Amino acid sequence: MRVVVLTGGIGGARFLLGVRAYAREVGAEVTAVVNVGDDLRLHGLRVCPDLDSVLYSLGGGADPERGWGRTGESWTVKTELAAYGAEPSWFGLGDKDLATHLVRTTMLDAGYPLHQVTDALATRWQPGVRLLPATDDRLETHVVVTPPDDAGGDGQRAIHFQEWWIRYRAQLPTHRFVFVGAEAAKPAPGVTEAIAGADVVLVAPSNPVVSIAPILAVPGVREALAGTPAPVVGVSPIIGGAPVRGMADRCLAVVGVPCSAAGVGGLYGSRTTGGLLDGWLVAEEDAGTQVPDVTVRAVPLRMTDEAATATMVRAAVELT
Amino acid sequence: MRVVVLTGGIGGARFLLGVRAYAREVGAEVTAVVNVGDDLRLHGLRVCPDLDSVLYSLGGGADPERGWGRTGESWTVKTELAAYGAEPSWFGLGDKDLATHLVRTTMLDAGYPLHQVTDALATRWQPGVRLLPATDDRLETHVVVTPPDDAGGDGQRAIHFQEWWIRYRAQLPTHRFVFVGAEAAKPAPGVTEAIAGADVVLVAPSNPVVSIAPILAVPGVREALAGTPAPVVGVSPIIGGAPVRGMADRCLAVVGVPCSAAGVGGLYGSRTTGGLLDGWLVAEEDAGTQVPDVTVRAVPLRMTDEAATATMVRAAVELT
Repeated sequence: MRVVVLTGGIGGARFLLGVRAYAREVGAEVTAVVNVGDDLRLHGLRVCPDLDSVLYSLGGGADPERGWGRTGESWTVKTELAAYGAEPSWFGLGDKDLATHLVRTTMLDAGYPLHQVTDALATRWQPGVRLLPATDDRLETHVVVTPPDDAGGDGQRAIHFQEWWIRYRAQLPTHRFVFVGAEAAKPAPGVTEAIAGADVVLVAPSNPVVSIAPILAVPGVREALAGTPAPVVGVSPIIGGAPVRGMADRCLAVVGVPCSAAGVGGLYGSRTTGGLLDGWLVAEEDAGTQVPDVTVRAVPLRMTDEAATATMVRAAVELT
Repeated sequence: MRVVVLTGGIGGARFLLGVRAYAREVGAEVTAVVNVGDDLRLHGLRVCPDLDSVLYSLGGGADPERGWGRTGESWTVKTELAAYGAEPSWFGLGDKDLATHLVRTTMLDAGYPLHQVTDALATRWQPGVRLLPATDDRLETHVVVTPPDDAGGDGQRAIHFQEWWIRYRAQLPTHRFVFVGAEAAKPAPGVTEAIAGADVVLVAPSNPVVSIAPILAVPGVREALAGTPAPVVGVSPIIGGAPVRGMADRCLAVVGVPCSAAGVGGLYGSRTTGGLLDGWLVAEEDAGTQVPDVTVRAVPLRMTDEAATATMVRAAVELT
């Protein structure tokens, strides 16, 4: 059995722990197609927050308390960079994490595409699932905002998603998201093949606007999802009208979608009408949710531990 | 009064502490022309060991115990790089130190020349002397060796000086040094002007073969030294037949020069016969040293503290 998961970073990584546990039970192979829209260059280094969250989580190196980054992380380099006045200073660049970026950047600068670099990093972390970046090409989520220093309030400016998210905590007047480079991006080798050959495609309970949408923005991915014989089943990131983690509510507000299981299900839409989903797994709290032409089922949806998450995954796989 | 110092890293940095102390006494301005032959790219980062040793030492951030690198240094990134199997692993890349390389590399990649990058780093460290790299251009000291894995013993191969020095502790069969890029290098802006406008030029007690020679290998530097009205006075790095620090004896052996104050003085030679020196300051232990057409004086030459070093510097300035 072959399972493909479309996923972002932190929440997606936790979901993947359950997918892996489920896959071990049933003897399935898992391919995760990971968002790269959060990626950025920082002090010359290529940082891939979502790929790293997945690598560290599945490799046993993630900090479960903080929710991101490495266990036992230290911040010496960040402190020193600040002493030089080097910007940006708002990104949480840990010392351990930085080594990953050094290895990745060195390989990228030597000409290796991102999916090969990801393979190389995975030889250390042994995530137990195949990790594919959505694309090897540059695809960055930028956010069109009215900056805080805009006196008149009419000026708009695009900033990197990470700046919006981390520096401004999504608290700026925000107009829209732009996936820079998406039009010219190609799916990384293996992405459309994995989708076409899947027995089931799962959409992780990641942020639909800034984690899943950038994957779908890569030309060819939506077509592969439309054409695959496998059912496509999403897991709601919204429980009882609130995001499980992160600030999906802020992102949904920007695109005018209600922060509800029904809202996100409707945003994804049914495969029968050009959308994404055959099935939509929602929380017990959201029982009764309806999405036109999509099979909806309500189950316990808290990812409290791997076993609970694996049970969710089984429910998603068996939904259609 | 304007003092110019040609210098390498660790020993040179200690010498510069004395030069700065002397300069404060007499109200002199100091320009240090620093070797870049030790520079290397490491995990994609530009590392300038000699410039950094000088910056850290004069800025109060150097580790006096270890003799190189930063006080309170940690090694998290290096440990993580090793966990990825990233090579080279033999270089002592500290976390604090690494921030300097990140700032430098980011600026270099943005197009700033090394001397401007050095200025920018110096705004943090406030070294109290003007620091100029010998050149903004690539100039790397490589070492032609018979590698340890060379079964027949006839093969020769060039390795970076740092690999020879740190990884192999200079213990390989060694044939010669090559200053890669020297022919095409230009002195950094200000170098020849500083030499031409100096009241005295001092040659620090740095390694003559791999610290001072790469500076002299930049076309235009020897000419500036030959033409300056200022006296050029060297300070011997060899005391009683042994290097004060480092492995100058290994380097001198490679170029066939006796490891003695007279040997190094002779290697530099007299300005009157196309060489470098007007004066040569040697240790009391080496009293009686003669270098043809060079004024030699013997004084206490141990750089035990800043005051002792400043006294040495005064003796050097007053030698001719």
